[in-house]
Amino acid sequence: MIQVGIIGVGTVGESVAQILEANRDIISARAGKEIVVKKGVVRNLSRARDVDIPLTDNVDEVLDDPEIDIVVELMGGVEEPYRVVRKALQNGKAVVTANKALLAYHRYELQETAGELPFEFEASVAGGIPIIKALREGLSANHIESIKGIINGTANYILTKMMNEGVDFEPVLKEAQELGYAEADPTFDIGGFDAAHKLLILASIAYGIDAKPEEIMIEGIEQITQADIGFAKEFGYTIKLLGIAKKVGEFVELRVHPALVPQSQMIAKVDGVMNGISVIGDKVGETMYYGPGAGGDATASAVISDIIAIARGGKASPMLGFKRPLESGLKLLGRESIVSKYYLRLEVADRPGVLAKVSQVMGEQNISIETMLQKPGQEGSASLLLATHACEERAMQEALKALFELESVKERPMMIRMEA
Amino acid sequence: MIQVGIIGVGTVGESVAQILEANRDIISARAGKEIVVKKGVVRNLSRARDVDIPLTDNVDEVLDDPEIDIVVELMGGVEEPYRVVRKALQNGKAVVTANKALLAYHRYELQETAGELPFEFEASVAGGIPIIKALREGLSANHIESIKGIINGTANYILTKMMNEGVDFEPVLKEAQELGYAEADPTFDIGGFDAAHKLLILASIAYGIDAKPEEIMIEGIEQITQADIGFAKEFGYTIKLLGIAKKVGEFVELRVHPALVPQSQMIAKVDGVMNGISVIGDKVGETMYYGPGAGGDATASAVISDIIAIARGGKASPMLGFKRPLESGLKLLGRESIVSKYYLRLEVADRPGVLAKVSQVMGEQNISIETMLQKPGQEGSASLLLATHACEERAMQEALKALFELESVKERPMMIRMEA
Repeated sequence: MIQVGIIGVGTVGESVAQILEANRDIISARAGKEIVVKKGVVRNLSRARDVDIPLTDNVDEVLDDPEIDIVVELMGGVEEPYRVVRKALQNGKAVVTANKALLAYHRYELQETAGELPFEFEASVAGGIPIIKALREGLSANHIESIKGIINGTANYILTKMMNEGVDFEPVLKEAQELGYAEADPTFDIGGFDAAHKLLILASIAYGIDAKPEEIMIEGIEQITQADIGFAKEFGYTIKLLGIAKKVGEFVELRVHPALVPQSQMIAKVDGVMNGISVIGDKVGETMYYGPGAGGDATASAVISDIIAIARGGKASPMLGFKRPLESGLKLLGRESIVSKYYLRLEVADRPGVLAKVSQVMGEQNISIETMLQKPGQEGSASLLLATHACEERAMQEALKALFELESVKERPMMIRMEA
Repeated sequence: MIQVGIIGVGTVGESVAQILEANRDIISARAGKEIVVKKGVVRNLSRARDVDIPLTDNVDEVLDDPEIDIVVELMGGVEEPYRVVRKALQNGKAVVTANKALLAYHRYELQETAGELPFEFEASVAGGIPIIKALREGLSANHIESIKGIINGTANYILTKMMNEGVDFEPVLKEAQELGYAEADPTFDIGGFDAAHKLLILASIAYGIDAKPEEIMIEGIEQITQADIGFAKEFGYTIKLLGIAKKVGEFVELRVHPALVPQSQMIAKVDGVMNGISVIGDKVGETMYYGPGAGGDATASAVISDIIAIARGGKASPMLGFKRPLESGLKLLGRESIVSKYYLRLEVADRPGVLAKVSQVMGEQNISIETMLQKPGQEGSASLLLATHACEERAMQEALKALFELESVKERPMMIRMEA
């Protein structure tokens, strides 16, 4: 028998306890032993919960209980769970967590503390999709060339609605909030921060790279309009919020931003609240993983798969998938050196000579234009929609600044990166 | 150090040896030790091979070598590899195989023989896609409700071409043969037998069910015409060769056949030689796995992931994913009891009363028609295209027989099952 303590019995914690009970037959067949929740820790004991496990509001009753083999951390937050997880590991307990923020900041310290103890976190990225096991185990023979993930369901829901129904950002966000797909403060999801946390976890496994959220490019989807979506459709693209990790020589670029993705790519077909992650390995080529990125039961499915793996194996699979340090020497690529193609939308005065000035600014940064489209705007203005050939972020930022300084450019230019 | 013997150094075997060499850095970081190919066994020593490993034509030099830890079986065939794998296990060696035919017939005996020894076969289903690890580990908390797989690249290539380019079966098959996507004798692929082998492996892991290929429904894609594809397009479907395993009460249905799949489903978007497997778990919902189902490097990627898992873990993960027998009591559903919706194409004489007769036959089997379309055929004949509501296979087979006996029905009716 394996005894589990759950710290944080919210939606996911409740699902974990419920599924361990409901699917006891298959879980014990797969694990080789019974898995029992000995105790759950909650902040507020007076709130009713839909589970039949003993509850406490004292975390030490789990951390110091010698009978508890596995601590499941589902608290949320960063520093408090960090202290809890560290203490659990120091007390010799295996740990399972779904906490991506915790891992975005402390995964390497925790790996160090864990040593040979199992420390698993399949649920921290893309909910029910077993992407971490796929990277650590399924694709273990490959150097990973790139990872492109739709790893935030809220943002994908909003973008899908905007694409399919021609609705603007604000009303779709409001609807998503009413449906419970978006938080009251949606910044974390639509601003790309949640996706960034997940991307850093995947990048650690693929590249052994220790970056913090503050060090990488993170842009959200708030500025996207139907004008941008119209351009995307016209040229065979869809717009997705992507988390991208890509090996470029001795560097790894890490970035979260909306992107124009060719409609023919599998990842472009991941719609609604679903998640999808495309991984290119140097030997296997492209594989793609699709499924629910959130929800109590889907997330609990991943949490329990980790518990079962620990019950089966006893021994740790190495946290980030490496038995030895990966001496890749890979470094984080500075964001200004990232190379991409770009889509720009400029709201300009509709008068002669504007096009020439725009072209000149681009030319000064050595950026060549691949496609250009002019559409009539409101009273005396026009929208210039253009796609560039590949250039460095540095040059694009200079160009954007110079474009905005042009007298004939009326608003801050809109820029979205394009994926080939 | 882990020493490996490769039995069968063809396309996949060469790739295994080459990748172990080329990706030595990441493989040893993930495995925690060096992995070295000590010897390869070939039938014909005089044929040049593009690998730098010692070769022999005597299989016992691998099977009886006490220094070899893992035997990689890549011979092809059934009975000879069965003897070889059994002997390797009896000699205490871990075994990795990509041989789906072997597993379709002997997986349970080999599991028995393996006991606590690792016996892994990720490469046997869907090449480079880690679907076996996903089922055994990633989804281990779930009862699997259904598996629907596009698990034969040749058939999917042909159907995709037929759908996208309006070309008939024969010329596309010929082209596939010229491109090396189809064998000179393509029966195994286009007849559904290859997919059936893979389906049985997946079904064993999901349901613990021991069925042989001869016991399940297997139909190929040879009879599909542009008339059928036209109907599919008109009603928002695509046609795919699917391997389906589905839990229905205390039974499991296993079947391989072409199917009309709604274009909105993710699995319908898997095109060309690619493979895709959609799995529905009772807790996680749908997850989908996409990637290359064949090819030397992609298959070798899966073979090596198994070798790394063995090197890492030492101990066996249970072959079919169960530490204990799964006492599911699930039985194979007889094929005549499978329930489906059906699409039919009837070539009929274009004269009054035919429609009434067809409806009468269907009515006698209690099959109700959902959609009907009549198209003009050649000289005095017409094509009747219809979709039914769900009914049992038994009733449909009776109806097909009765329809073919109608004087006004000119050819054997075409039937394709429809997936919801």
